[in-house]
Amino acid sequence: MFYLLDIIGTMAFAMSGALTAMNKKMDPFGVLIIAFVTSVGGGTLRDVMIGRTPVGWMRDLNYVYAILIGFTIALIFRKKLDRFRTSLFLFDTIGLGVFTLIGLQKGINIHLNPVICIALGTMTACFGGVIRDILCNDIPVIFRKEIYATICIAGGIVFFGLKELHLDNDLLYLITSLVIIVIRLMAVKFRWTLKPVEKG
Amino acid sequence: MFYLLDIIGTMAFAMSGALTAMNKKMDPFGVLIIAFVTSVGGGTLRDVMIGRTPVGWMRDLNYVYAILIGFTIALIFRKKLDRFRTSLFLFDTIGLGVFTLIGLQKGINIHLNPVICIALGTMTACFGGVIRDILCNDIPVIFRKEIYATICIAGGIVFFGLKELHLDNDLLYLITSLVIIVIRLMAVKFRWTLKPVEKG
Amino acid sequence: MFYLLDIIGTMAFAMSGALTAMNKKMDPFGVLIIAFVTSVGGGTLRDVMIGRTPVGWMRDLNYVYAILIGFTIALIFRKKLDRFRTSLFLFDTIGLGVFTLIGLQKGINIHLNPVICIALGTMTACFGGVIRDILCNDIPVIFRKEIYATICIAGGIVFFGLKELHLDNDLLYLITSLVIIVIRLMAVKFRWTLKPVEKG
Repeated sequence: MFYLLDIIGTMAFAMSGALTAMNKKMDPFGVLIIAFVTSVGGGTLRDVMIGRTPVGWMRDLNYVYAILIGFTIALIFRKKLDRFRTSLFLFDTIGLGVFTLIGLQKGINIHLNPVICIALGTMTACFGGVIRDILCNDIPVIFRKEIYATICIAGGIVFFGLKELHLDNDLLYLITSLVIIVIRLMAVKFRWTLKPVEKG
Repeated sequence: MFYLLDIIGTMAFAMSGALTAMNKKMDPFGVLIIAFVTSVGGGTLRDVMIGRTPVGWMRDLNYVYAILIGFTIALIFRKKLDRFRTSLFLFDTIGLGVFTLIGLQKGINIHLNPVICIALGTMTACFGGVIRDILCNDIPVIFRKEIYATICIAGGIVFFGLKELHLDNDLLYLITSLVIIVIRLMAVKFRWTLKPVEKG
Repeated sequence: MFYLLDIIGTMAFAMSGALTAMNKKMDPFGVLIIAFVTSVGGGTLRDVMIGRTPVGWMRDLNYVYAILIGFTIALIFRKKLDRFRTSLFLFDTIGLGVFTLIGLQKGINIHLNPVICIALGTMTACFGGVIRDILCNDIPVIFRKEIYATICIAGGIVFFGLKELHLDNDLLYLITSLVIIVIRLMAVKFRWTLKPVEKG
């Protein structure tokens, strides 16, 4: 079940990456690469930094297939995707929750400090988008106003708070994902953004 | 022989990187670094992702010397290099073929899936240029129209196709390199480019 | 003592990163990430390339705390930091010396060639700034005129020159740091910069 959500999240991230690349007038290869890094870039960065190599997507081809499918759908339906904006956004949000949890868990697996685990969760969920923006020659959107990353950090804190209560692992995962997903939905609905730091 | 071609390719990539950096009005240190990442950036990324550390150029100084020589030649003859454009382009194309094969082989060595091996070959040959463009604050040229990467992928498919025929390894290498080199030459001669995806 | 200087350098780099990010009108999360990569980005890149994983800051939380403190100070005193410009610059320069030495030593520890060790020292001290500039969508300042990196290379050469004399390790460290720090101070005082390579 969790694995399935992971694959759905990967596909959603690939589609959103492909759409960004098409807006930048990239060629099909560029679109494919941006789809790729958007969906697995964060996890790749995490794996490389903790020494889990070959990195994830090289060991499980399902991620590669999910990206190729997401890329193909985005390419074929590029003119009609606006109609499915809500579904896309929902899958993307599921990805955010699931990716954060996977990053947290990978840190826990090798006994890293909770602070580092939260950093790994945030990196997994958000840094694919950072690499995408760099490749598209933009300042990463999550550094400017998106509260994306802040939600992942909040989710990580909730996770370790609940962990202290010795909850069942499945329940722990479920609640944390829901917290991330709900905050994300509320953030978009109520237009929560971070303001730039005023230096003046 | 293959090793020699690898070193020649490294030098050619370093020269082309140095020329790009000089066009961006960088200082000598900047030019050196861009030469460096253009030639070994792709292989470094590959090594880091498959856990082959310390990465290649740290273990064999000949790559470093090849880059330093390429950098020095580009610096000294910067005003006359236009006259040698054809030779430079030829060496660069040899590099493309050789680097793709090296990437493929590194993946095979650790028993990765052919799809991943082709990704590694393409990464080895093309992502030095991607890092160069990012450091120069451009959208990577291979994401916009260059069919560079597509040729590497085609070469990889040919490689695994021929491998099924149980060809001799040397022959396999030779044919794949030639396929890549010939397509590249034809691509330039007939101005094959990829068109941006129209989102309209 | 050396460890203390390392922590002070980390904090100084974090503060300078935070200031750059605030000038780019980033939000607090963006400012934090830029502070983070400016201070530990170079060491992280080095660790990943030599296979020393999980990377440094994941194993010793003091670096993370130093960054958080530097970030917080920069955020609170952002309007008054100009007054402390000289102290900040001094700490930053100490960081430059210490980080170069740490990079050199990590290379020596795994018996890499002196040329590679000098590259690692330079990478440790300078590439946090490179990643910062890329994330801020600028061409890295050390590629354009700053002699920052050249000083690290010079320091590395002095280090290996003195090492031949079989100096005591502490003395070796002290002299190399002082060389780097003094050249850096002189470079700023006398406005030494590198000129772009003229291609015309």
